[in-house]
Amino acid sequence: MNYIGIDVGGMSIKCALLDEYGKISARKTIVTDTNKDGLQIIDDIAKMVNSIIEETSLKVEDISGVGLGFPGSVYDEKGEVRYCCNINMIRTPVVKVLKEKTRIKNIKISNDANCAVLGETYFGAAKGAKDVLLVTVGTGIGTGIIVDGRLLRGNRSAGAEGGHITINIGGVECGCGKKGHFEAYASTTALIEQTQKTAQKHPESILNEIIKKDGLDGKTLFKAMECDDKAAISTFKRYIKYLGTGLVNLANIFYPEIIIIGGGISKEGDKLILPLQRYVSKNVYGAKFNPKIKVVAAELKNDAGIVGAAALTMEI
Amino acid sequence: MNYIGIDVGGMSIKCALLDEYGKISARKTIVTDTNKDGLQIIDDIAKMVNSIIEETSLKVEDISGVGLGFPGSVYDEKGEVRYCCNINMIRTPVVKVLKEKTRIKNIKISNDANCAVLGETYFGAAKGAKDVLLVTVGTGIGTGIIVDGRLLRGNRSAGAEGGHITINIGGVECGCGKKGHFEAYASTTALIEQTQKTAQKHPESILNEIIKKDGLDGKTLFKAMECDDKAAISTFKRYIKYLGTGLVNLANIFYPEIIIIGGGISKEGDKLILPLQRYVSKNVYGAKFNPKIKVVAAELKNDAGIVGAAALTMEI
Repeated sequence: MNYIGIDVGGMSIKCALLDEYGKISARKTIVTDTNKDGLQIIDDIAKMVNSIIEETSLKVEDISGVGLGFPGSVYDEKGEVRYCCNINMIRTPVVKVLKEKTRIKNIKISNDANCAVLGETYFGAAKGAKDVLLVTVGTGIGTGIIVDGRLLRGNRSAGAEGGHITINIGGVECGCGKKGHFEAYASTTALIEQTQKTAQKHPESILNEIIKKDGLDGKTLFKAMECDDKAAISTFKRYIKYLGTGLVNLANIFYPEIIIIGGGISKEGDKLILPLQRYVSKNVYGAKFNPKIKVVAAELKNDAGIVGAAALTMEI
Repeated sequence: MNYIGIDVGGMSIKCALLDEYGKISARKTIVTDTNKDGLQIIDDIAKMVNSIIEETSLKVEDISGVGLGFPGSVYDEKGEVRYCCNINMIRTPVVKVLKEKTRIKNIKISNDANCAVLGETYFGAAKGAKDVLLVTVGTGIGTGIIVDGRLLRGNRSAGAEGGHITINIGGVECGCGKKGHFEAYASTTALIEQTQKTAQKHPESILNEIIKKDGLDGKTLFKAMECDDKAAISTFKRYIKYLGTGLVNLANIFYPEIIIIGGGISKEGDKLILPLQRYVSKNVYGAKFNPKIKVVAAELKNDAGIVGAAALTMEI
């Protein structure tokens, strides 16, 4: 069977043709033109879909489904992007318009974290699991949740905003304007701020040399820890507490079999995953009586968005 | 159709015969004998079930299902009470033993908050809703969650422990030993502590007179507010922030149509519900674009446990 998965981002729109096992056989990428309005962008996407079908000598009827993931709030059941600040979409009827322009019947859309958790559950780190939690750590924090085999969407797909749970009342201000949210403490943006503060406070720390040489980013703290830098190690421990607190909160509610960490930071592998695993195992409610929750890095990496979007149309 | 619902508590075990509309036609209550072990208590329950069937001139075959709710951790799928400190049960195979003793085939058990949310969704405040959140405020905080029409249990029914999410890192110690949990700030136990502290700090407050006259309980603060007591009003505002923060956290994850407040405090009605509704509407993520979440008091009151337990066996 043939599916098309589309990962819509603020910089680029990635599209691939894949089979029911998640295996990709053709790709296309276009630049996201942020000067265009939502409908014009759908037009670009439709052209990309039509050309990938043509170039692979397929017919429209050969495509079992097209799925799209967006970095914003999506009303899945209505096929509408509710808002997506990066790409000029407000209440944009993506599914309706794209169906008209491609004549494909089975088109589904969702938020990108929802796509990622579906992709990992169907084809990646959580294959076979029924209760899965995915936390994407990036500019913000996205959460994708599978409950008893089904994607948790909430009323009118407004749920699964796990980045915006308060972990510290009255604390650091979040991008959304409220205070003390998980995202404000544990996103890569927050990690970078915490790294910078530590560097300023500790002129003796190697962090300062690394920043001067490589610039400041989400990897800076990890580089300094490799040099056994005390200030970096202590900042990292605090960061694990922040990230771990959010994971434990979600775990106490969902009690998943597995927690998947996505986003650039997951490339740090065991340096990140092992301390997080320890934190979750130690702090989850009822750990003495309940099964262990595995913490792992995402497996699908750069293709997670594409494969997960396609998986939307494979959902039972 | 005939169902039996059983609400197992640390003080008493309440049992009722009811129909598929939740209408109760017979009742029985026994005292929970905490000197007995788990199996002996199941024996008491079996006798109660058998006698209610006999007294109402029914046969075992007339009973479509028996449901039981426990104030502890329950492994629903296995029919086992995992632990329940009030009533001497650890890994107790309730369903297996009760089936043997009653010859009834359809017996189901769950945690009491799960029962309560099922009861309210089938017969109470959330009739017809598909996404429902119930928060029981009592000695602790229990949460029952319906996602897309189905009870959220988590892997091996270990989930839905929403009372144990951290809302204030490193804050007040919770009964479970961890710090900063929702329950440690917003349970009735916490409210009473906060009331007491305010009374001590403000000798001029009418709280002190009320405590001297009526004793200190979950109603004290509300009584003082009726007298426009400034210290009480300011303590209540802080309490609403605590309770509201937990509700908003859960709402951001689940985006339910309705949030139901249960437990003794819900009897305060609008005095509690209206400020909570304002807090949730103001602070929930994406309020501008998303539907309003209703906050209401539980409807089933004292029968919630019984009716909800019976509803376990009506679940589709």
